[in-house]
Amino acid sequence: MNGRPLITGLETHDIRFPTSRDLDGSDAMNPDPDYSAAYVVLRTDGGAEGHGFAFTIGRGNDVQTAAIKALEPFIVGRRLDDLGALYKEMVHDSQLRWLGPEKGVMHMAISAVVNALWDLKAKIEGKPLWLLLSEMSPEEIVSLVDFRYLSDAMTPDEALEILKRAEPGRAERITRLRAGGFPAYTTSPGWLGYDDDKLRRLCKEAIDQGFTQIKLKVGADLEDDRRRMRIAREVCGPGFRIAIDANQRWDVGSAIAWVNALREFEPYWVEEPTSPDDVLGHATIARALSPIKVATGEHVQNRVIFKQMLQAGSLSVVQIDAARVGGVNENIAILLLAAKFGKPVCPHAGGVGLCELVQHLAMFDFVAVGGSLEDRVIEYVDHLHEHFVDPVVIENGRYCAPTAPGFSAAMRPESIADHTFPGGSVWIADATTALEPL
Amino acid sequence: MNGRPLITGLETHDIRFPTSRDLDGSDAMNPDPDYSAAYVVLRTDGGAEGHGFAFTIGRGNDVQTAAIKALEPFIVGRRLDDLGALYKEMVHDSQLRWLGPEKGVMHMAISAVVNALWDLKAKIEGKPLWLLLSEMSPEEIVSLVDFRYLSDAMTPDEALEILKRAEPGRAERITRLRAGGFPAYTTSPGWLGYDDDKLRRLCKEAIDQGFTQIKLKVGADLEDDRRRMRIAREVCGPGFRIAIDANQRWDVGSAIAWVNALREFEPYWVEEPTSPDDVLGHATIARALSPIKVATGEHVQNRVIFKQMLQAGSLSVVQIDAARVGGVNENIAILLLAAKFGKPVCPHAGGVGLCELVQHLAMFDFVAVGGSLEDRVIEYVDHLHEHFVDPVVIENGRYCAPTAPGFSAAMRPESIADHTFPGGSVWIADATTALEPL
Repeated sequence: MNGRPLITGLETHDIRFPTSRDLDGSDAMNPDPDYSAAYVVLRTDGGAEGHGFAFTIGRGNDVQTAAIKALEPFIVGRRLDDLGALYKEMVHDSQLRWLGPEKGVMHMAISAVVNALWDLKAKIEGKPLWLLLSEMSPEEIVSLVDFRYLSDAMTPDEALEILKRAEPGRAERITRLRAGGFPAYTTSPGWLGYDDDKLRRLCKEAIDQGFTQIKLKVGADLEDDRRRMRIAREVCGPGFRIAIDANQRWDVGSAIAWVNALREFEPYWVEEPTSPDDVLGHATIARALSPIKVATGEHVQNRVIFKQMLQAGSLSVVQIDAARVGGVNENIAILLLAAKFGKPVCPHAGGVGLCELVQHLAMFDFVAVGGSLEDRVIEYVDHLHEHFVDPVVIENGRYCAPTAPGFSAAMRPESIADHTFPGGSVWIADATTALEPL
Repeated sequence: MNGRPLITGLETHDIRFPTSRDLDGSDAMNPDPDYSAAYVVLRTDGGAEGHGFAFTIGRGNDVQTAAIKALEPFIVGRRLDDLGALYKEMVHDSQLRWLGPEKGVMHMAISAVVNALWDLKAKIEGKPLWLLLSEMSPEEIVSLVDFRYLSDAMTPDEALEILKRAEPGRAERITRLRAGGFPAYTTSPGWLGYDDDKLRRLCKEAIDQGFTQIKLKVGADLEDDRRRMRIAREVCGPGFRIAIDANQRWDVGSAIAWVNALREFEPYWVEEPTSPDDVLGHATIARALSPIKVATGEHVQNRVIFKQMLQAGSLSVVQIDAARVGGVNENIAILLLAAKFGKPVCPHAGGVGLCELVQHLAMFDFVAVGGSLEDRVIEYVDHLHEHFVDPVVIENGRYCAPTAPGFSAAMRPESIADHTFPGGSVWIADATTALEPL
């Protein structure tokens, strides 16, 4: 198939999984999420499709879906062309921009559409996205980035230099990835809704499966957290990396006090200690808790906040999210910023489909941007992968490099049908929950 | 009428004004806005109504309206009760929170509903909102605020102290407001789309009308800006306050260079020099441009960013917006932060209905929080007031204190009907524009 297909349709689906029934995904801020996708399919004259989605946790997924639909005039009738220009056109649209700018529902909608465009492009080129990106020239990659508001931290020339520095080692790193994959850590043991026996069992399983890091949710009750950390440390042994994740539960002072009360159990990083908007608060926390690292990013709205967090020393671990900032393009900006400031990128995943997406970005980072696996791990959560056409493959605690063309974003048609809200079979079977969102 | 009416309905309207036809509101980032309102009406068993809206500039107003509709389950069937609790319930809803948190479309939707609840409450109490708030006890006011993520800058006790300090002078300041109103400045001369003659004429008119400050849009072309600033300075004379507004056009370095190139014309403040998310960038700009003040806020997403801007010295003028952060409640938090850090609040207005809303907040600030008129001005733009039931009244360059019960938010029924998009008469008459949003 040759390039520049005409995009003929943009179709959306409000897809929700009733995960709240099992307390999968329960944490200090999100007691009962229903993992959801505001899902988009781009159709083309040649028959190829691009799939993408914004991840949400239930209520409001209809609003998110409507926001994606509002982007239809930017996409339908266009040829798949320069994805730097198309991305910037949506982000800079003066009227839509008022709804952010570059944050929240409208920005996540752009993310879904941008990612669907990349899925389409990678399918047409017959390559997995990570490889497609990894084989682009430094100049092409730089042209994908919107440098607006970044120049005080990183210029296009500096970005080009970072990419050129990594260029000679690309082929060798691609070989390494194909042979050995990318390290993962697992959050599956750590949800707040699980009892101590389940925690113990899942920690044991994580080690047996080859993971070298786990993560526990914390922040609801300090004594519970101390007990759970003690159990995890006992099972995992000294030196094993145990991260903790507060999901924005604390103010600055309470973050410092709470984590200090867990210090004896040697947490490796503390994730989302406070508001994702609080650059200065994270910096204060990072200074107070060192050498415990501060990690954040899944709710960081855009490259401007990431830029400041790097400038201010607010974080030691950059947790990009595939579908919150403006998709692949803005994530490339964030990977470049992380490389500029010498911080490892350890993507946020879990949810529904986030593991599938984010593995491509981490692998591209390894090959062409950051150029290292040191202290790099991709989050892994063992939920909902069965709904994807090209699900992640984990072996010995590592993500295997995807081989199928595309961005691994496509959900199985029957999964889409069954989980469509509120009419899908999963929701009709539980009409009481479906009709009473509160 | 007595308290606690039952809220029986939440009705939304997508209302758009074709302002792009005249280039009213044109600036360096927003060349062709169609001023719009995602409008909400709350109905009650007693017949009283609460009106509110989120302001947008055209495309996406349908998404904004859908987001407001998504809040219906929180409101309908509830009694008008503790507006602190109701506000926090919406902001903290774990599933909706994922769509922000506390930013963008979903947060603006909460703003519209919260403001409509206050409009309803003020009507039922028979008072204009500014007076209703100004007569609450310091303890009641503190209970309206969400202090989450603020405690490193301001505790509830400190907020209480600020309010108690202002309490003795309240009655005298209410009398002053009723007698002399609140100072305003006008942006009407300064839109980029206007030619030099219109600029000159409107500057002259502003002075004749008693305004003591005007504002010019800048940032599209430096030589144009220098010519327009020279004209404005000539007409207004030395010492007259001329603010400039770049609407986020610049990066940090270019902001500093550009404003330095206008320094000879003595701009009083520079507004939105760069991304509203860039706390550190604003701080760098503020240090470089002093004594020219930095003003920002109309796009500042929530109290967490305002907190940091005050902590970092990023701004000298706090420009609250009535309908971007979480409505009256979050704006009270921001007024308290501004008072804590000793910075004047000069609200953003214009658009459609923003003047009507924000006058109440500024007057409440004067009476019960900041307690001063020094360096305080409310923006005034002479557009679209005719569509409101209780429009602002400007006399001698000052906002007169509203006397009608409510939040002045209600639009005239015929204006709602005529401007409903895309079916209203204004849009049907111009169907080409209406059907081709790009």
